[in-house]
Order: sequence, then C-alpha cells, then structure tokens
Amino acid sequence: MNRKAAIIGGGVIGGGWAARFLLNGWDVGVFDPDPEAERKIAAVMSNARAALPALSDVPMPPEGKLTFHGTIGEAVEGAEYVQESVSERIELKHKVYAQLQQANPGVLIGSSTSGFKASDLQKGSPAPQNIIVAHPFNPVYLLPLSEVSGSDRNPVEVVEKTVQIMKDIGMFPLVIRHEIDAFIGNRFLEAVWREALWMLKDGIATTEEIDEAIRMGFGLRWGQMGLFETYRIAGGEAGMRHFMAQFGPALKWPWTKLMDVPEFNEELVDLVANQSDAQSGMYTIRELERIRDRNLVGFLRSLKDRNWGAGKVLKEHDERRAAAFLAQMQTGLDTSAKPAPLVMWQGQVLPGWIDYNGHMTESRYLFACSETVDNFLRMIGAGMDYVEAGHSYYAAETHIRHLAEAKLGDQIRGELQMISADEKRFRHSVRLMVGDTCVATVEQLYLHVDMKVGKSVPAAPEVWKKLETLANAHAELPMPDGAGRAVGQKKG
Amino acid sequence: MNRKAAIIGGGVIGGGWAARFLLNGWDVGVFDPDPEAERKIAAVMSNARAALPALSDVPMPPEGKLTFHGTIGEAVEGAEYVQESVSERIELKHKVYAQLQQANPGVLIGSSTSGFKASDLQKGSPAPQNIIVAHPFNPVYLLPLSEVSGSDRNPVEVVEKTVQIMKDIGMFPLVIRHEIDAFIGNRFLEAVWREALWMLKDGIATTEEIDEAIRMGFGLRWGQMGLFETYRIAGGEAGMRHFMAQFGPALKWPWTKLMDVPEFNEELVDLVANQSDAQSGMYTIRELERIRDRNLVGFLRSLKDRNWGAGKVLKEHDERRAAAFLAQMQTGLDTSAKPAPLVMWQGQVLPGWIDYNGHMTESRYLFACSETVDNFLRMIGAGMDYVEAGHSYYAAETHIRHLAEAKLGDQIRGELQMISADEKRFRHSVRLMVGDTCVATVEQLYLHVDMKVGKSVPAAPEVWKKLETLANAHAELPMPDGAGRAVGQKKG
Repeated sequence: MNRKAAIIGGGVIGGGWAARFLLNGWDVGVFDPDPEAERKIAAVMSNARAALPALSDVPMPPEGKLTFHGTIGEAVEGAEYVQESVSERIELKHKVYAQLQQANPGVLIGSSTSGFKASDLQKGSPAPQNIIVAHPFNPVYLLPLSEVSGSDRNPVEVVEKTVQIMKDIGMFPLVIRHEIDAFIGNRFLEAVWREALWMLKDGIATTEEIDEAIRMGFGLRWGQMGLFETYRIAGGEAGMRHFMAQFGPALKWPWTKLMDVPEFNEELVDLVANQSDAQSGMYTIRELERIRDRNLVGFLRSLKDRNWGAGKVLKEHDERRAAAFLAQMQTGLDTSAKPAPLVMWQGQVLPGWIDYNGHMTESRYLFACSETVDNFLRMIGAGMDYVEAGHSYYAAETHIRHLAEAKLGDQIRGELQMISADEKRFRHSVRLMVGDTCVATVEQLYLHVDMKVGKSVPAAPEVWKKLETLANAHAELPMPDGAGRAVGQKKG
Repeated sequence: MNRKAAIIGGGVIGGGWAARFLLNGWDVGVFDPDPEAERKIAAVMSNARAALPALSDVPMPPEGKLTFHGTIGEAVEGAEYVQESVSERIELKHKVYAQLQQANPGVLIGSSTSGFKASDLQKGSPAPQNIIVAHPFNPVYLLPLSEVSGSDRNPVEVVEKTVQIMKDIGMFPLVIRHEIDAFIGNRFLEAVWREALWMLKDGIATTEEIDEAIRMGFGLRWGQMGLFETYRIAGGEAGMRHFMAQFGPALKWPWTKLMDVPEFNEELVDLVANQSDAQSGMYTIRELERIRDRNLVGFLRSLKDRNWGAGKVLKEHDERRAAAFLAQMQTGLDTSAKPAPLVMWQGQVLPGWIDYNGHMTESRYLFACSETVDNFLRMIGAGMDYVEAGHSYYAAETHIRHLAEAKLGDQIRGELQMISADEKRFRHSVRLMVGDTCVATVEQLYLHVDMKVGKSVPAAPEVWKKLETLANAHAELPMPDGAGRAVGQKKG
C-alpha cells in the first residue's frame, strides 16, 4: 500500500511537488479548480520523468498513482501529508486549510508560501499545530532545499514528521530557527532582485549582462559552497576573521543602492520584459526548462561523484533505497526458480554520454556493464565493506560487441549471465537492453584479488558459495551470443 | 617566442592570474615584495595544475616560464600585458602604475580592483588610456568571468585588446557599459552579504544554515542561468511580463533589511568567525580550496557536455587550441619519419572517474581510448564535418586488457597503432600510458558507415588515402601485445 500525499494547487510548484512524490513511489491526489490543471501537471511530469531518475543509481520505485479530484475533501482522503501551493492570498489559504482539516482532521499540511509565516497561516485554524511552512525552490523535483518553518504552536513532533517526509522524497529540509518573513532563500533573492532592477533602470547593464555576471562567476561557486565557506577560503589561512577585517569596511561604501527601492511601473516592466525577450526569446519556456533541468542534473551528478552538498543528499537517498532493491534482487539467487539472466541495473542516457554521432558514446556501454556487475557483486556480498576489508574483484579483460545504438534519454537495462566461475575468478556476459533491443554484449573476466599484496586469491567462502550457486544455475542456460570470440572473429 | 604577462601582487588573486597565463602557455614575470610570494604562488599553481587542465579536451600547451623579480621595472620588461592585484589602496595603485609606465611606456594594464572605477585608477597617469579594470572572481584559474570596465579615456582599441587577451587565456570578458563602483558581480555579493550579516546578528540562521539555503537551492540555478532567465521560466509561457506582474508588488514588502546596515564591530566579527569555525573548521583552507576546485571542475565539465554558459566558453577555447594541436599531429602522417605509434590524446583522471576500489573505473579506460581514436579520426579528415555530411566510423568490437591501475590525478596518454585497414574498416590497438607504465591495451574494429542507410560503405578517397598511408607505415611495427585474442585466451 503506497503512502499518499494531497497536492492543493497544481501550478509549476504544485506540479513539481506532485512529480517528486509520484516518482518516489507515493500516490498523489490533486485538487485544482483550473480546467488546465491536468495538462499543466502532465507537462511538469514529463520534464520530471526525464530528469529526476537521471540522478539515481538505484532503480526508481514504481511510479505512484496520480488522481485528480473535484473537491479538496476527496483529494485529501487517505493522505498523510498535504502540500498547499495555492496563490499567495492569506484568506484563500485559510479557506483551503479549513476544508482540509474538516475532511481529514489529523492531516499534516505543509505550505509552499514564499512569504507568509507559519503563525499567519495558522490563524483561525482549529488545529494550528498541523500547519507548517515547507518552502521549496523551482524546479521542485530537482532542487533539494525545503525551508521548514514553524511557529511556537507547532510541537517538535510535527516539525520532525515534516522533516522526515521531506527526506523520504529526497529533499534537504532546512529547519528555520525563528519565524521571519520570506525565510532565508527569498530574502537573498529579493536583495539581488532589487539591486538588479536598479542596474537595468540606470542603464548599467542589460538582463543578459547581469545573468552572465552571475553564471560566469559567483553563481558557479554558490552551487557547491555558500557565501561563508567561499569567503572563508578568500580569507586564506587566516580564515574568516581575516576576511571580515579586510572586507568589513566595505559595508560603509556605496556599493549597493539597496537603501532605496526602484519604482515599480509600466516603464520598468517593459524594460525588463523587452530585454529578456532579446536575451532568451529564441527558446520557448519549455525548451528553457529542459536546458535548465539538464544543467542541474549535470551539477547534481558531479556533486554526487564528489559526495558534497546536494550530491551528498542524493547519495544518502540512494543508499536508503538500495537496501530495498538488493533485498528484492536476492530472489535472483533463489535456486528453486527457473534460471534466467539477472536484471541488475537500469539507468538513463544523459547528455554527457552522447558522442558527436548523436549516439551513446562507446565508453558508456562499458560503464553500464560495470554498474550491472557492481550491483551483482554487492548482492553476493563483495560490495564496499568487502573492499574495505582488503579484497575485491578486478576486471582483467573485456570484449564488447556493439549491436545497436542507445540514444539520449533511453532507459538501459543490464542483464547478467554467469558463464563460468571458480574460487579465484569468474567470466560473465552482460546484455545491455533498451526495451527489447540488445544494444551491446559485454563479456568479462574478473579476478578475485587480495588488494594488499596485489595477487589473485580465492574469494571468501560465503561469497564463493553464492557465486557457485548462481554459476551452477546459469550453467543450464545456452552460451551467450558472441562469448569466447576475439575482435573481428566470425561466428562458428 | 611565448607572449609575456607581468603580475604585480602575488596573493590569491595575482597567483590565480599567474596560473591562468602560465597554463595557457604565456611567460609570467611576478613582482611582489612579500618574502612569502614565491611559496604562495607555488601553492596556487599546485591547485591550478590539478584543476585547469582537467577542463581541457585538447592537450595543454607547454607551461610558460615563471620568473620573480626584485623591481616592477624588471617584471614588466617585454610584457604586453600587466595584471595588477595589489591591495585596495588608490595611492598604492597609482604608484605601481607610474613605475610600470616608466619602464614599459606602452604596456596595457588591467586592474583586479573590486571597487575602484577606471577613471579613479587613471588619475595622474601620463597614459591613462592604457589603464583599465579587468576584475576576476576567485579562483581565477577556473571561473571565466572578467569584468572589463573602462572610462571615457580608454579608446575602443584598448577595450578590444583587453577583451582579446582575456579570451586568449580562456576567460569570459564582460564589458561594463558605464562606470559604476563595484561593477556588477560585487554589487550583488555586497547585497547578499549585508542581508546575511543581519540574519546572523538577529539569530535567524547560522553561517552553515545560510550556506545550505544557498547551495541546496538557488545557488544551483545560478551556475547555469542567472536571475532573469531563471525568472523568465518561473513566469511560465506568459514569460517575464507575467513574472513581473506577479512578483513586482513584493518590492514594497519588508522582505529585506537592506534599507539599513548592521554595525561592524568585534561582536559581529566574533559571531561570524566562530560560526564559520563550527561549520568548516574540520577542513584546512587548502582542503577547502581543493574541494571547491573539484566541484567547479565538475560543474564546468557538465556545462561543457551541454555546450551552455561557462561550458560554451571552455568549448570555444578548446576549439581554438585544437587546430594548433592537430596541425602538429599531422607529422604523424609524415612517411619520411620512422614509423611509431601516434600519441593522440592526453587527459587527467577526475574524481568522477574513480570506482570504490579507489582506481580509475573501467569504463574510463575505454573513454580514454575513444578520445584517442576521435583525435585520430579528426586528423585523417573524418571528424565532425565528415559526420555532419553523413558518414562516420563506428566502433563495432572492443577488446580491453587491464594491466595496471590509473589513479586520481594521473595524466594518461593514448598511443594509437594501426593493425590493418581497408576502404571499409580498420583495426587498431591503443596503449594507455601513465608515464612509462602501460595501464591497459584496447584493440578495436571500426566500420566506416553511411549513417543515412546504416550500412558499411567505403570511406571517402581522401580519408582512405591518409588511413592507408598510416596503415602501410605501421605494418612495419611488431603486432601489438595482446591483439587478436579472446577474453581469457592465453598467449601464443
């Protein structure tokens, strides 16, 4: 039985939440009176399906069930959590909460509000303790931040439950210590926004120049370290205190116009909108979304490689899900079942995997095979812990046959068949499948190695036992196509 | 004869400039009266050597010559460009410029100043037209932004020359239209800094929480699109005008405290420094620098995969250098020379290339081979243009032998030997070398394909002619070790 979330308000933000819950295996009930809501959420889902699974190294759980409802009461039925993302009008939010709490009295309600404090949201509610802020950043299905902000009416258990739900869907909940308008992120965005509007108005820079000044410089830094850690480095070995001493006086210099606010009028709107058209008008919003998502997937995956910042959040989310996946895979060692190649991996072809022919670049076929074998090794008990204890399986030789092409966005599946095995080595063949098409076969010889002495030695008995069981079962299968041949050698 | 830059002031910023010039093949003369200057620049160079070459897909030019000088006059001798990065004291800068212009009257001087306008810098100079602002962001050897800001005394040729030099060392010069204190980037940084100090002072958030709010959310967005392009997306299909209408009124809400400035005193310094210690004190500044650099390399490479933003700058820089590299490689086709395997690629082992054994992951061996073959194909005239015209070479089969291990930061070299070739196919063997150690051999069969009909066809005559020439020359070489064998097959 899946867990269920209700999504009230199905715009870009509500749709992003829906996508995150669904792709993490939750059922989602949506209420939005907009007749276009289904179409809009379908568009967000299509973006999210192309992006979020690309961050995962563990197969995603089956997508949850998405339903649309004519009333708030129906949408929230059976839900343990509600994400409210309606317009920023306090009386509308109060009305929504009243209906939610009438239909499902104990339900936890998180609000996507960018500015209202929890204590504002809770006013007039019979159960104010169950209403809290969970403020995300767009695109919700990729950016991990959720600012969780409660009032003194929220007991600690409600904050903890909200935090846990955010973690369950792969987010990074940041609990805000004190109630404050606009929380943390939007205060910075507002400061930058005001400064930027002055620059446009004064003709100092165009929207495009301002964007370049951000993304070619400090914007790159801020995706991986924030303001303070970056400045700590700038202070050199003397650290933060030195930085403060050096740059503190600049606080008194006229380096921002933020003491004042530009007048918001038609002229300002025209200026910004026209410059933005000149800068980005060659792309539709849909195209920009996809470009943005691919870039963010690239950043997030590279942080994941380095186990840092948002990449650490992803890695921990994977680890939680990996245990469930591997337990399920253990059925592959079930000797009472009919022997068959083991499906050990699935993954998505990313932009960096494409060569100038427009196909998946050849080394990524071997990457897909490695991931398949790594999962297999974990399953037989020769994973990370085994390596840390000093033993490992090393690939000694590899023979790849390229049979068809995988393309951007394709889902690849790795199926492993054991050809032969003894205590010191095994030979396998992996078939890489896109749907029913075998795009490549990879035959490999792996040696079991004592890493300290750098010599091939027998595997630990419990590992060998599992490997032997599987090898015996797979001995009944026909020899995999292409195995045992040299490069260019004909069949037969 | 290398081009030469003088670096005046050898701190973190001056050292970063020195590294960028040196690694792009310029000679650099440094003047800094600090007795520690050599040690400090060596530390920056060590970071830069580990990071900047990792962004390049074309072998780097030979590193330029670094010299230290006792006087400004000696440092600037023979230089076509000076980067001044001394302390932010206007009288000191004026003194430096006077000495530079006395020793090398026509030299172009760019200043790293964070705040002074060009017209301030030019005061009292006999040649004000040659002094301009070129404001970088730390780390200078990785972040492409250079804010180029002149006064009305700088003729357009001086601005253009500065822009060209910035491009020559792989930077993104952003010419600022009007003189303004702190240019563009630092105005935003100052706004965010002021807001952040208020939050600390008011106890709303710690330095760590503020950093998380940035790097888990909008910081990730800003490395690839700036403020306006991001908000354009938030406006949905209705675009920027809709966004403005929706969020414009927030300008009047009390969402920032920026109308005011926190008092800069001991208490504030202690608060920030102590929290920063708690957040990041487990790392030395050196460690933080390296973590930052690896993250930035990851971001920049993923943008390069997507040809977007700063990644586009890198790609264009590579393309300029590729022409020179390939011209030099043509000597590999010189039949009068003694035949030898062709060194066609070099690259650096990056963090994402490492598996959980701590070695380079197996698919990256094949990646290194692909890069080697791609460069070879470009050299024989079967590169991007050839593919766009409808023909290409596809890898059909691959046999890899893993002989030793490459580790993080290793420089790998790919050497190609042709085994056999005809009009429709070739078989090669690539040796991947780390220093004198062969870490792997890769034997491959490539087919020449008409991409439209998906069939193997003869190569274009001019391509085949080059390939044949090389195959004939390499026929004299002994058969490469391991070629012609199946997985697990013994020698002989």
